[in-house]
Amino acid sequence: MRADALRNAEKIVRAARDVYAEQGPDAPLDEIARRAGVGIATLFRRFPDKAALLRAVLDQQFTQQVLPVIERALEDEDPRRALTSVIEAALTSAADEHHVLTAARNAGIFTSETSARFFDALDPLVTRGQQAGVIREDLVPDDLKRVMGMLVSVLWTMDPAEGGWRRYVTLVVDGLSPAAATPLPNPSPPLLRRHQT
Amino acid sequence: MRADALRNAEKIVRAARDVYAEQGPDAPLDEIARRAGVGIATLFRRFPDKAALLRAVLDQQFTQQVLPVIERALEDEDPRRALTSVIEAALTSAADEHHVLTAARNAGIFTSETSARFFDALDPLVTRGQQAGVIREDLVPDDLKRVMGMLVSVLWTMDPAEGGWRRYVTLVVDGLSPAAATPLPNPSPPLLRRHQT
Repeated sequence: MRADALRNAEKIVRAARDVYAEQGPDAPLDEIARRAGVGIATLFRRFPDKAALLRAVLDQQFTQQVLPVIERALEDEDPRRALTSVIEAALTSAADEHHVLTAARNAGIFTSETSARFFDALDPLVTRGQQAGVIREDLVPDDLKRVMGMLVSVLWTMDPAEGGWRRYVTLVVDGLSPAAATPLPNPSPPLLRRHQT
Repeated sequence: MRADALRNAEKIVRAARDVYAEQGPDAPLDEIARRAGVGIATLFRRFPDKAALLRAVLDQQFTQQVLPVIERALEDEDPRRALTSVIEAALTSAADEHHVLTAARNAGIFTSETSARFFDALDPLVTRGQQAGVIREDLVPDDLKRVMGMLVSVLWTMDPAEGGWRRYVTLVVDGLSPAAATPLPNPSPPLLRRHQT
């Protein structure tokens, strides 16, 4: 991509974050183009459809808000605190960009590359916690996907800006501790794509 | 309601459960009427809209599948097992009637009388568990609503008939145990109605 094309893409992604935050998940693309100071044709040249734009928004957000926390967590000597901090960063980011997530859900984007990057980063933190004996042994990687999905679902039941969801992070992370662990039933087959309804 | 009207209502509700199970959340009302052996006008006389029919379906399902488990749980001397059995019964019922729940969600029914009945029944089980020291003290009633919502959200990520969701019931109930409890952040304000998107 040429430099001006790249700059346009960045401006559009930043504008999309602002416009979704202000106007909700149905914010029109032409308003996003207007706010970015580009024509709608330029927007569609950079992002052939809404899904592509939403993926780029999720990606920018992950890189800016979650990745730095993951990097710090890998240095944290307390593996449980490290894991909790990353889960909280991901949910803070999801809460901040509540409308973007809803729009992504409406557009049928549930398994993005961004979430793959996130779960790849989470794996070593879980393994470290298991080795240190503070995360239950019987967790499998897919469990973290489902646990994150459960926690994200809580966001839709409250004003996420108030942070009430942190309570459920604590509850769930307590459930990941070996201190209260009862044997888990067998894991189910790999995560299905969510039903699009 | 006269006896034949009642019989019609029951037939329609039973047909609705079958038709939703076979055809998915967008099953047409006229197919439900046909299956029940009544005209569409009769269906609309009993259930003025789809939401009313879905509420009746949820209600019948609760009365048949969940209420008996709650009654047994109140007699169970192990309060943790009792609470788990009721949560599992509710999720089994939700899993069995997966498409009905999706249809209800699409129709904007998130806080039905049925769910109020369910949570009223859950309260004494939680209190009993807390008194017995097997459920953490810092749970508030709204937490159970959110925990159930989280567990229901897991159903959408798998074929619920396979029962893989039981793993997350165990994980979450372990998180309700005082054995692993770390202090919970403050509860958020009462449950909001879910966003209709």
